[in-house]
Amino acid sequence: MSEIKSITEKIKKFRDERDWKQFHNHKDLSLSLVLEAAEVLEHFQWKSPSEVDGHARECKDEIADELADVAMYLFELADNLGIDLPKAINNKMAKNAKKYPVAKARGRHTKYDRL
Amino acid sequence: MSEIKSITEKIKKFRDERDWKQFHNHKDLSLSLVLEAAEVLEHFQWKSPSEVDGHARECKDEIADELADVAMYLFELADNLGIDLPKAINNKMAKNAKKYPVAKARGRHTKYDRL
Amino acid sequence: MSEIKSITEKIKKFRDERDWKQFHNHKDLSLSLVLEAAEVLEHFQWKSPSEVDGHARECKDEIADELADVAMYLFELADNLGIDLPKAINNKMAKNAKKYPVAKARGRHTKYDRL
Amino acid sequence: MSEIKSITEKIKKFRDERDWKQFHNHKDLSLSLVLEAAEVLEHFQWKSPSEVDGHARECKDEIADELADVAMYLFELADNLGIDLPKAINNKMAKNAKKYPVAKARGRHTKYDRL
Repeated sequence: MSEIKSITEKIKKFRDERDWKQFHNHKDLSLSLVLEAAEVLEHFQWKSPSEVDGHARECKDEIADELADVAMYLFELADNLGIDLPKAINNKMAKNAKKYPVAKARGRHTKYDRL
Repeated sequence: MSEIKSITEKIKKFRDERDWKQFHNHKDLSLSLVLEAAEVLEHFQWKSPSEVDGHARECKDEIADELADVAMYLFELADNLGIDLPKAINNKMAKNAKKYPVAKARGRHTKYDRL
Repeated sequence: MSEIKSITEKIKKFRDERDWKQFHNHKDLSLSLVLEAAEVLEHFQWKSPSEVDGHARECKDEIADELADVAMYLFELADNLGIDLPKAINNKMAKNAKKYPVAKARGRHTKYDRL
Repeated sequence: MSEIKSITEKIKKFRDERDWKQFHNHKDLSLSLVLEAAEVLEHFQWKSPSEVDGHARECKDEIADELADVAMYLFELADNLGIDLPKAINNKMAKNAKKYPVAKARGRHTKYDRL
């Protein structure tokens, strides 16, 4: 079994032992994905670029916990939706390569529709 | 190389070919993680439970693209922070198992501090 | 002075007494707006429609605090950007009236570009 | 009628002409508040402090539209929940004044629980 698949199976086992599938509809999982991503972001609120790096080192374990929360909702949601995440990433990277050709996008953070 | 590691290497190659590392500080990556998670959620805005499932089937490819965006920022951010994501997930699941013991949490969506 | 203007002045006084203007750049205020909105949303995570209403009554004061946080960042951000919020709302409602004509939009939650 | 009350009445009239109350439950309104706040934040994604100010001037009208969207959901949600927003702001500012006394908080962006 692939790594993501195997992690996803553990997540689903944890969920099913608690009979939580009933709450994990796509809308609440998406909403939870946003909330957990917001908890990652909160770590960097009000911080200047130099403070950001120091904080990241100092609170690495707390941030790791938040990233894990994002990952767990992401992997479960993809699975519930019947989406193969590695394949989806591959497809999206191919699209992005067209939207952001190296020659045009190099060294610029402009959105593709304004490039 | 593990699956997540190998995907992360592709993401970093894409980024570095475009010289985008300079923009990908932890704060902007976290912020982007929230924005992409919001785009997933937008798919389910205003939708009733029954509409949610129909929409998920109908727009599976669009949603797969949004999940891929979340995954790509998540994998890169973890890597930039020196966080081993599978290990972080393992640690967090062990914590969650203590916060949400099966006997107490079964069939309930109550937050651990109110269980 | 108008009501929103007068509330905004109090918010700015609070901020300036603490010398916080230096942190309140547009990016961090926008980011904070998202974080506070997420705290509102967290109140309704995992809750079914019927649970939502009960929770809203039970935790009215906590939710009021979260809405106040959103309002304070919103009013300050608009002020910092030189945006007259009541005027902006008026303009946006006029645009929305065109995007969502009553005849087409009545009883439907479809986005304007799919109406 | 107060300014916020009067704006809220216009928002509700717009909503009711379209028979949208049925979709505007607290959960979907909170979710929409987050999505609109995210659209404000998107304006500042990847931008350095100096770029932020230039962009804010250049795209003032677009940002005003996004802030208006946040305000409209905020005002309606507060009204639906029976929350008096100006009063809620007053209460929250009184709490914040205790959490962030001038002497301790001056010139620092530290969260109150670490002050």
